[in-house]
Amino acid sequence: MLIVMEQNATQAQIDAVVHTIKELGFTPAPMPGSQRTAIGILGNAGPIDPGNFTALDGVKDAIRVSKPFKLVSREMKPENTVVTVGNQKIGGGDIAVMAGPCAVESLEQCLIIAEAVKKAGATIFRGGAFKPRTSPYSFQGLEDKGLEILAEVRRRTGLAIVTEAIDHDVLDRVEAVADIIQIGARNMQNFSLLKRAGKSSKPILLKRGMSATIDEFLMAAEHIMCQGNHRIILCERGVRTFADHSRNTLDLSAISAVKLLSHLPIIADPSHAAGRRDQVIPLSRASVAVGADGLMVEVHHNPTHALSDGPQSLYPDQFEDLMRQVRTLARIGV
Amino acid sequence: MLIVMEQNATQAQIDAVVHTIKELGFTPAPMPGSQRTAIGILGNAGPIDPGNFTALDGVKDAIRVSKPFKLVSREMKPENTVVTVGNQKIGGGDIAVMAGPCAVESLEQCLIIAEAVKKAGATIFRGGAFKPRTSPYSFQGLEDKGLEILAEVRRRTGLAIVTEAIDHDVLDRVEAVADIIQIGARNMQNFSLLKRAGKSSKPILLKRGMSATIDEFLMAAEHIMCQGNHRIILCERGVRTFADHSRNTLDLSAISAVKLLSHLPIIADPSHAAGRRDQVIPLSRASVAVGADGLMVEVHHNPTHALSDGPQSLYPDQFEDLMRQVRTLARIGV
Amino acid sequence: MLIVMEQNATQAQIDAVVHTIKELGFTPAPMPGSQRTAIGILGNAGPIDPGNFTALDGVKDAIRVSKPFKLVSREMKPENTVVTVGNQKIGGGDIAVMAGPCAVESLEQCLIIAEAVKKAGATIFRGGAFKPRTSPYSFQGLEDKGLEILAEVRRRTGLAIVTEAIDHDVLDRVEAVADIIQIGARNMQNFSLLKRAGKSSKPILLKRGMSATIDEFLMAAEHIMCQGNHRIILCERGVRTFADHSRNTLDLSAISAVKLLSHLPIIADPSHAAGRRDQVIPLSRASVAVGADGLMVEVHHNPTHALSDGPQSLYPDQFEDLMRQVRTLARIGV
Amino acid sequence: MLIVMEQNATQAQIDAVVHTIKELGFTPAPMPGSQRTAIGILGNAGPIDPGNFTALDGVKDAIRVSKPFKLVSREMKPENTVVTVGNQKIGGGDIAVMAGPCAVESLEQCLIIAEAVKKAGATIFRGGAFKPRTSPYSFQGLEDKGLEILAEVRRRTGLAIVTEAIDHDVLDRVEAVADIIQIGARNMQNFSLLKRAGKSSKPILLKRGMSATIDEFLMAAEHIMCQGNHRIILCERGVRTFADHSRNTLDLSAISAVKLLSHLPIIADPSHAAGRRDQVIPLSRASVAVGADGLMVEVHHNPTHALSDGPQSLYPDQFEDLMRQVRTLARIGV
Repeated sequence: MLIVMEQNATQAQIDAVVHTIKELGFTPAPMPGSQRTAIGILGNAGPIDPGNFTALDGVKDAIRVSKPFKLVSREMKPENTVVTVGNQKIGGGDIAVMAGPCAVESLEQCLIIAEAVKKAGATIFRGGAFKPRTSPYSFQGLEDKGLEILAEVRRRTGLAIVTEAIDHDVLDRVEAVADIIQIGARNMQNFSLLKRAGKSSKPILLKRGMSATIDEFLMAAEHIMCQGNHRIILCERGVRTFADHSRNTLDLSAISAVKLLSHLPIIADPSHAAGRRDQVIPLSRASVAVGADGLMVEVHHNPTHALSDGPQSLYPDQFEDLMRQVRTLARIGV
Repeated sequence: MLIVMEQNATQAQIDAVVHTIKELGFTPAPMPGSQRTAIGILGNAGPIDPGNFTALDGVKDAIRVSKPFKLVSREMKPENTVVTVGNQKIGGGDIAVMAGPCAVESLEQCLIIAEAVKKAGATIFRGGAFKPRTSPYSFQGLEDKGLEILAEVRRRTGLAIVTEAIDHDVLDRVEAVADIIQIGARNMQNFSLLKRAGKSSKPILLKRGMSATIDEFLMAAEHIMCQGNHRIILCERGVRTFADHSRNTLDLSAISAVKLLSHLPIIADPSHAAGRRDQVIPLSRASVAVGADGLMVEVHHNPTHALSDGPQSLYPDQFEDLMRQVRTLARIGV
Repeated sequence: MLIVMEQNATQAQIDAVVHTIKELGFTPAPMPGSQRTAIGILGNAGPIDPGNFTALDGVKDAIRVSKPFKLVSREMKPENTVVTVGNQKIGGGDIAVMAGPCAVESLEQCLIIAEAVKKAGATIFRGGAFKPRTSPYSFQGLEDKGLEILAEVRRRTGLAIVTEAIDHDVLDRVEAVADIIQIGARNMQNFSLLKRAGKSSKPILLKRGMSATIDEFLMAAEHIMCQGNHRIILCERGVRTFADHSRNTLDLSAISAVKLLSHLPIIADPSHAAGRRDQVIPLSRASVAVGADGLMVEVHHNPTHALSDGPQSLYPDQFEDLMRQVRTLARIGV
Repeated sequence: MLIVMEQNATQAQIDAVVHTIKELGFTPAPMPGSQRTAIGILGNAGPIDPGNFTALDGVKDAIRVSKPFKLVSREMKPENTVVTVGNQKIGGGDIAVMAGPCAVESLEQCLIIAEAVKKAGATIFRGGAFKPRTSPYSFQGLEDKGLEILAEVRRRTGLAIVTEAIDHDVLDRVEAVADIIQIGARNMQNFSLLKRAGKSSKPILLKRGMSATIDEFLMAAEHIMCQGNHRIILCERGVRTFADHSRNTLDLSAISAVKLLSHLPIIADPSHAAGRRDQVIPLSRASVAVGADGLMVEVHHNPTHALSDGPQSLYPDQFEDLMRQVRTLARIGV
């Protein structure tokens, strides 16, 4: 249930609602809102009588929430959440573009790519310092050295940094450096890591699991948000199907579905979905056209020698071309 | 193997190549080309020595074709195939829009919808007269009466007609009336029907099967084309996955993949993929942005009373809105 | 709705029920039953008042049927349907084994294999005369010559014959020769072909489509049965998933689910599901253990030279081994 | 590469091989073997010249390993790994049955169920103390209190205990109590947790991820084993597909495929795969018949009041029936 306060409700009136929720044995979850305060009620197994609240002073309405996810739902908060990172707003109408190599390989490599993607219009630099690897014998990333390089890239270019945290321990270290902490697809239901992310002061980029339903995806975000971190950016990155012409199948209807059900921003990662360079630009256009709030794109100046995911990385000039197309689409605002 | 003739090759030189192919025990498949003639070789189990042909007069080149599909492959014919229906070119850069109700219900219903979609900019009217139904107890379509209605719609509006043929017998009757004969997803591997479609003088709209790979999809088109009908329009209509927020998962990377592998035009059907109205416009935008040559969209003036697929049919004013957005996207030509 | 007659109901009483159903504008579907007659009602959009029937003489009960499929449902007919082919009962507790090569290649090839599988205990010989092929350039089967060979195999070995009909025209010819007519996975929703099969006097082996739900599978059987052919054998043959260690994923829970919902017998085809020899015997055991009424298994005396599907064909001695294991499992009757 | 030593090789000869591997810059991984010692070589990007080793004293052979997984592969270790827990051998031919409630609810509940499953023949008790939950608002398990209950169950019944560890912190606590530590499907690619599990002295039960390929599954086991823990039991628990008649699709061909590729034992969890009681017994039979080394089955004495997964839990008398069937199957040893 969601208690919607009058626009001019006083703090005392809000406190009274919070107090009543606690007295009933439930958990109050105040929701940030530009116009007025709303207070979610968590922890109830069954329906609650709205009459408990509508009689209180300053209460405008008490609304039943029908979804398993509460805080992330549009029922609870109709207006879009905008996550601001540096000067980039994500979820407010602009197309936020995060670009960079799959893995951080060296400062030199990162600077070459960072300068190129910045020039083309990206505002956020991506690069993996800690890599979740199917094989224990693959390159696992430069780890702490990689984080240092990312910090140096930000210092020199002004780009914000997004990089993946693969466990609790790494999250602490990523949190100290990154502007956005990424939780990867394989960890979408690592609830313990989600809980830790929910206590971070940094925004979280949450990727959809490889076979997650929309309900599971939004519930994963709920795990983060109910710990207090409201700055969540969702990311569709392709799902596993029988199809073999792309690594995964980018599910763009998921973006429409999420927009309907949740107030959170959602971006697309066509690079990991496709797994092959030639589909990245068309799928980027499609993602923006369907309504994504941004893109995450892999770029490498020398993909054939990339330590990771070269076949899907765009060359810098292809990325420039992509950005031109994205800007055109963004301008017409379809 | 593909034998490419010189631009000024004579008919006698072409005949000599055809003769040589037959003598080797293979089947010649001459390919239409605006610039020059090419002749595909079918029926060989293993590689053929190009020397058999390069020594002949008028032969420019003999190229190995590495794909299981031959005639539909871009290796065989690098330039796009453009299928012309009335004044509408499909595959030539324009966005061809086919719109109308799921099922033909009455002349009055069809005329209301046809006038609306025509006014909005569609050039082709869709409507099922024969419906393939999961249940034998569901409405199976108006059948021949439905075909008469479609013919009347064309007479009165000038719109071209596309409608589905569900078996040989129906294909004969559809062929007599429709401008484009549709082969549905459930019949994509009904090879006997494909063979019959390959002998038709009408263009074929071939929908991708619900769990067809791209190779299987293009091979189905090859079944049609190797019978002599080169006017094929492919259609991506969603694939079956675990996802439950849309009826099927529209696989837009399939459009990029097909464009790379084949010279045939390909459109998208977001209505059947989504199965719900609220995703149709965003997915239509995404389909055009990814590079589809057209759209097939369900429209009904009174969806709540539609005999079939009401929940996914757009209202006429929504369709107008969709067409405005499509025109804007087409204009910027991303 | 299902009208259940008293055990001693007279023909006149049955006729009166049929007459009443017709008068209400619906279609009566009398059901064969060893104990008493039941009459299904088809064609109603909504619920029917049972009072229309319970007052008639000889009527024991009028039962609402909640499934979209009627005639094939266990609600309509609680006892198992047993399809008898020669001396082999399918659905009555025995394990019916259909074995043979993927494709009929020659009389000699078929006789070698037929003798081997007969000796090992199979009672039905399988072999494709008409092959549905992804590629138009692949071997399409010996066609009518193949049917003649199958007829000769039966004459010489006494084995019953099952072979696939890929379209109407072929079905006529297969019907004249085969003991069981197979409808393949690709044609599971070729409703026109199902309708024709429903008018045949021969039993139908209906394979599950590659991405068919259980409801769609049973509705396909309903398409056949509502035309009057009650002798249907279902076949689970694997579904399309992301998994790449077998060609398709054999879905054995489908067998449990079908047994619960329908009175029809169901067998498994582990050869096509696996696509590789080494999984055929373990999956055969699992199929019998889960409750399948039989198996369809590919066997070839010289798989490396088979014209089709060699990699999944068992050698005759492996098939003997399989039959020994199947008999052991059947004996313990788990 | 795998260096296979002669049966009578001395420790000095083994040490010389280990030394040579290190000198070449690679990592030696000695493998336990009852007959002779073998030493795996890890960390090489490309092929290694066998001549480096075959000339050394006591070396019988140097074998190239073609799979991405090394230590878990049958190429490296042809004989089956047997994991012993109490008196139960897993992987040695017996069928090990782990049974109990989805979640630990109370000591009383656990004792009732534990006595029942022990009497029926199970040797290992399962019960979740820490539950990974899609919703943050669902019952998360009794946590440490649950572990105490499990320890008490073992004390009173002698049953071994298997329970899930959902993160590092929980793994420490589970390790102190359980006989087998379970890593759940959602954590199959939580590489950090796998690494920690690899350092445990307790056997690990590793469940297949919901959309994991066999390669990914075995690579996850490799992550554990390359840390030194060789006692791994794999578990097939169903994969995500379009099918809706069971919660997931139990992929029994995965068991055959794993047996071929790896020496590790593998069991099946039909309860989680099916998600419904009526499929658990048939799928259990099928799992044993296909070659599984054991079963994990949910049992509850009062499923309608279970805090978790009641609909799929067997009643104790159904479990007794299942055990009778499993014993019969095990006896005939197909």
